[in-house]
Amino acid sequence: MFPEPGTSSLTATPAATAVFTAVLTEGPLSRVTLARRLGLSSAAVTKAARPLIEMGYLRELAATERTGPGAGRPASPLAVQADREFFVGVKITADELIGVVCDLCAEVRTAAHRPLSGTGVGDVLAEIGRLVGDLLDGPGGYRDRTHRLGLAVSGDVDRTTGLVRYSPFLHWRDVPLRERAASATGLAVTVENDVKALTTAEQWFGEGVGAESFALVTVGTGIGCGLVVNGRLVSGSYGVAGEIGHIGVDADGPECHCGGRGCVEAIAGTEAIVRQARDRSGRPDLTIDDAVALARRGDEGIGAVFARAGNAIGIGIAAVANLVGPARIVVSGEGLAAYDLFEPHIRAGFERQAFGAAVQCPLSIRPLPFEEWARGAAAVSIQTLVAS
Amino acid sequence: MFPEPGTSSLTATPAATAVFTAVLTEGPLSRVTLARRLGLSSAAVTKAARPLIEMGYLRELAATERTGPGAGRPASPLAVQADREFFVGVKITADELIGVVCDLCAEVRTAAHRPLSGTGVGDVLAEIGRLVGDLLDGPGGYRDRTHRLGLAVSGDVDRTTGLVRYSPFLHWRDVPLRERAASATGLAVTVENDVKALTTAEQWFGEGVGAESFALVTVGTGIGCGLVVNGRLVSGSYGVAGEIGHIGVDADGPECHCGGRGCVEAIAGTEAIVRQARDRSGRPDLTIDDAVALARRGDEGIGAVFARAGNAIGIGIAAVANLVGPARIVVSGEGLAAYDLFEPHIRAGFERQAFGAAVQCPLSIRPLPFEEWARGAAAVSIQTLVAS
Ligand SMILES: [Zn+2]
Ligand SMILES: [Zn+2]
Repeated sequence: MFPEPGTSSLTATPAATAVFTAVLTEGPLSRVTLARRLGLSSAAVTKAARPLIEMGYLRELAATERTGPGAGRPASPLAVQADREFFVGVKITADELIGVVCDLCAEVRTAAHRPLSGTGVGDVLAEIGRLVGDLLDGPGGYRDRTHRLGLAVSGDVDRTTGLVRYSPFLHWRDVPLRERAASATGLAVTVENDVKALTTAEQWFGEGVGAESFALVTVGTGIGCGLVVNGRLVSGSYGVAGEIGHIGVDADGPECHCGGRGCVEAIAGTEAIVRQARDRSGRPDLTIDDAVALARRGDEGIGAVFARAGNAIGIGIAAVANLVGPARIVVSGEGLAAYDLFEPHIRAGFERQAFGAAVQCPLSIRPLPFEEWARGAAAVSIQTLVAS
Repeated sequence: MFPEPGTSSLTATPAATAVFTAVLTEGPLSRVTLARRLGLSSAAVTKAARPLIEMGYLRELAATERTGPGAGRPASPLAVQADREFFVGVKITADELIGVVCDLCAEVRTAAHRPLSGTGVGDVLAEIGRLVGDLLDGPGGYRDRTHRLGLAVSGDVDRTTGLVRYSPFLHWRDVPLRERAASATGLAVTVENDVKALTTAEQWFGEGVGAESFALVTVGTGIGCGLVVNGRLVSGSYGVAGEIGHIGVDADGPECHCGGRGCVEAIAGTEAIVRQARDRSGRPDLTIDDAVALARRGDEGIGAVFARAGNAIGIGIAAVANLVGPARIVVSGEGLAAYDLFEPHIRAGFERQAFGAAVQCPLSIRPLPFEEWARGAAAVSIQTLVAS
């Protein structure tokens, strides 16, 4: 395994992990609040926080406010020192790299795209090396305070070993990406499935903060889902989880590349939409952008394709709500650039098929800036500061 | 709240909870194994076990075997004293009560059924009182060592407050069942949804032991699912979880009582099967038993009804596997008395729709003796020995 000098986790005890995680995700928080929320004594919180303060990761805010009437001591909340360390996140797609530098609060400080001329592992790694170099050695001066890199890849990724088992879009099988990227960049690397990385970003720094359960559905070429249940990301006993795209929602629907029938993705994935729009329009060269434009101009046939797609996504989301009952569901992804065409049908499908009180689950349906995928990779890297 | 003298949990510390739970569900286990598995010191295990041994719940087995070549000390495994305490479990259906007495290992010691003439709360409670009396004061002599009663009810049940919020089959709304049953029986009562109770029994005493994730699918009048994910039962943020019966698997399928379309239950629930079999046969008085008999005699039309039903169940189960990736799935329930008619179609639907490696998830498809529901209720009651 590649050595990671100086890049092991910062937290040595369960109490330190709990305190640092809480301040990272929900801070600033006073020691009193931390103690109450984590079931720790005040002394234990103080002891856990001290080395993190000494290393410069946490800081005490000025004690300007009292916690309430009659409270004897002023509260001095603990907050994250956002610029103590920076993290690179890179999303690898079949035709480009998207890279960001984030601070400790997962705020994007700078971003860059790089086209890829091919998906050969060596070429991609060389381009990652150049991209990381440009991001870190540019005007922000991030190099000295950056030690960790997160990589997000679609497909079957083993975060523990850093192995990309299979990535269909990249045509990669059993690529030891963590080690090779560490060699190429000199950084400590974490590799994660892209949807899981995005879910981690939402769970730690977005709409999922504090939720015991949470789902993120991504709509685009593929249709995926990241799930947090009982406070933890769901991984699947056989490496498969969150495959909302392959729930069968239409017994007489189209065959799917997975071997199933009437899968959500076979109806609502980008390719499926293009195929149906070509059938409807009789134009074999129609692109997804053409289909969106036609639907927006009121073409009823093409509009019906988006309606059917949105409805299928809504039924898939209802299956998630009916089965695991997340506290909230975010629907996002590059497919939602055509947000206006999907949104009412996603909601209608969800509302019809959600069982009883499951319909109360709030759906946030929003487009996803492409940098968010890279930010997800950086968030996974930030997570490695905390012992699991 | 009804007082529960002498019936609070037996475990006062997290270590005691962990030790007692491990021996209950996986015992006998040596202290060395317990320490290693639970991440505790040997001294902590010994300290945690001592009061449980003194109270007679755990006992040391004879140290006849050494743990391995060169092992210095003989292993003296800890085991549960099965007859230290007994537990009553009662499943309440619309037309009968099923009651069991279980020992501490959830083995059924005695069972009894009682027909119900109506579902009025008062009448049902009076009958529960008589049933419990007969079970405890009969030849087994269980009364003195029985303090806890578990009740299993279909529908929306709040275990924490003991309230049955809504049970459609019983026509109950907001019934404080725990308190009323405690008054009627003098026992400390736990109330749980029937599918969750059955899932608990499998998780603690059945095929789910040791699994981080696990699903139990019940087939019958309703089609339900209990889910264990990340080691804990999934409850749903809005009280809805495991509603596999209302996943939409057929966009053009029949309307469901829930307001959805093409729900698994609207295709494969007992009522749906009877309705389709009546349509096919032209016999408006056909019963489920008639339909089973006809299908077994080779009636193709009725056979197709069971095939479609099994297939819909299989697609629903694949949705569970694709989304949460349980380590194993048990399919059971009174509907599986017609096991032979369902089983190949459940497997075919599952195998076609399971995504990639999710198809590796083992399915156990087996009929469910009706006493199992009552045993599930008793298992929930046994769980109350352990602090949560
Ligand atoms: Zn598929
Ligand atoms: Zn339904």
